[in-house]
Amino acid sequence: MSVAPAPVDESVVANLAATAHRIETTLKDLLPTSDGLDRPLFDAMRYATLNGGKRLRPYLSLAVSDLFGVPEERALRVAAAVEMLHCYSLVHDDLPAMDDDDLRRGQPTCHVAFDEATAILAGDALLTLAFDVLADPVTHDSAAVRIDLVRGLSGAAGAHGMVAGQMIDLAVEHRAVDVATIEHLQALKTGALITFSAESGAIVGEANNRDRAAIVAYGRDLGFAFQIIDDLLDAEGNEEEMGKAVGKDAEAGKATMVAVAGPDIARKRAEQLARQAIESLAGFGQPADTLRDVARFVVNRRT
Amino acid sequence: MSVAPAPVDESVVANLAATAHRIETTLKDLLPTSDGLDRPLFDAMRYATLNGGKRLRPYLSLAVSDLFGVPEERALRVAAAVEMLHCYSLVHDDLPAMDDDDLRRGQPTCHVAFDEATAILAGDALLTLAFDVLADPVTHDSAAVRIDLVRGLSGAAGAHGMVAGQMIDLAVEHRAVDVATIEHLQALKTGALITFSAESGAIVGEANNRDRAAIVAYGRDLGFAFQIIDDLLDAEGNEEEMGKAVGKDAEAGKATMVAVAGPDIARKRAEQLARQAIESLAGFGQPADTLRDVARFVVNRRT
Repeated sequence: MSVAPAPVDESVVANLAATAHRIETTLKDLLPTSDGLDRPLFDAMRYATLNGGKRLRPYLSLAVSDLFGVPEERALRVAAAVEMLHCYSLVHDDLPAMDDDDLRRGQPTCHVAFDEATAILAGDALLTLAFDVLADPVTHDSAAVRIDLVRGLSGAAGAHGMVAGQMIDLAVEHRAVDVATIEHLQALKTGALITFSAESGAIVGEANNRDRAAIVAYGRDLGFAFQIIDDLLDAEGNEEEMGKAVGKDAEAGKATMVAVAGPDIARKRAEQLARQAIESLAGFGQPADTLRDVARFVVNRRT
Repeated sequence: MSVAPAPVDESVVANLAATAHRIETTLKDLLPTSDGLDRPLFDAMRYATLNGGKRLRPYLSLAVSDLFGVPEERALRVAAAVEMLHCYSLVHDDLPAMDDDDLRRGQPTCHVAFDEATAILAGDALLTLAFDVLADPVTHDSAAVRIDLVRGLSGAAGAHGMVAGQMIDLAVEHRAVDVATIEHLQALKTGALITFSAESGAIVGEANNRDRAAIVAYGRDLGFAFQIIDDLLDAEGNEEEMGKAVGKDAEAGKATMVAVAGPDIARKRAEQLARQAIESLAGFGQPADTLRDVARFVVNRRT
């Protein structure tokens, strides 16, 4: 039996839903369309991104942008780029050669709905489009700000970030690993992009170094807490509520904090990380309440 | 019988070989290494990039950089980023779900030497690293120049460039297509990145708009000529000389200029494009001779 989580803050759920809608609208505008021979590619890119989801990463990006007074149009573009990157990673992770998942957010995964070739290409194109959106002058007048966004994303997404995390995740399947390896794996696989999601708002908001470092610390702890709870929900969750197969981590021999330390210690660790994330926001006062609410939500969520 | 090509200019072959060596050294420096659990990823990235090849794209980038007096360290980084992008596209194109090729440059393809999951991730990481290298301040002091490089690459590589070309290429297999469709397909699939290879040298060299447009025109014609000859060599070539399977286009029902118009018309079109590419260089005088030699080499090459 795990420690019972606190009740979910319904105002955060409502905020997430409202933000998800704004992000979907922005994604629809940014994603290409075609009636030509390349149409399956564009359809698959839309399918992989416009299929719901919590939109935690763009929500974080937008909330931090808001804290630094970024105009909405710019903030939404940055948040959408982060979400494209996340969606590309899901499309490739779900492929038969990788995690071989057929169901995602209650729908057939991209390679099931289309085919493997189209899914690989749609992922490649989403990854590339994320950089294109960040580099576009519409995102910010300053080339220095835009290049900072591009570097942040490439660092979080690449061979020293998300892709390395996915590699390690595959490498340690069915192998005994320690907590330190799991923390390293998760810092790369999901932590780096969640951290950048928060940081991206500080970059486009031209935050000073101290504030940016505080946001990075917040994002890092939040990202790790999020992943622990994700693994707990997979271990304990209900397939219908989750909209995806559950119990898959154990079946696949995935290295998770839950598997190694057990659900009680895992939940306590997540709660400690969420408190730590909130402490990083001390300098921002009341305007950072949205971010504090997210940290609490992340550990109390049911799906 | 096709029209006999002119003799190959051996000085270009020697220049290509010397440049390939410099590019390999730069790639080795830029590619990450690891003794950790992520090592297969890094090994696969190296395997996919340090395996020879003509290095036409970085050669073009370097030759144009040279024309505009770019310091070698910067020019080599830009050229290496272009080559990383090209190598990622080969790794993904060779996958079983795509062109299903086992042999590339005389060696097992990346997914054969490693496995499919590692090959997909290595491609993703190379794509991301290309952007990272271009965005790095070491590449150029000016953020405006770097963002221009990033945008150029994302445009050439993404859903309106290379990835769209690959999608169309798969979509028209075993279907009757006209010359216009083939020109459109090839402009996207290989043309966009070859054009950007040349343009990247003009960007990092801060060329004026007129010179940059001339280089783009050159790159576009050269890229198309290159692809036609590639298809001719596949149709007529020798597997041992080519280091990869030949006759595969016809077998796979690929849409090529050779298949639609026949080898004679295809070769004449390539030669016309090469002449046109050389005409675009009229304003640069003798310093552009290297680029003129490349245009001639591209249509006269045997492998």
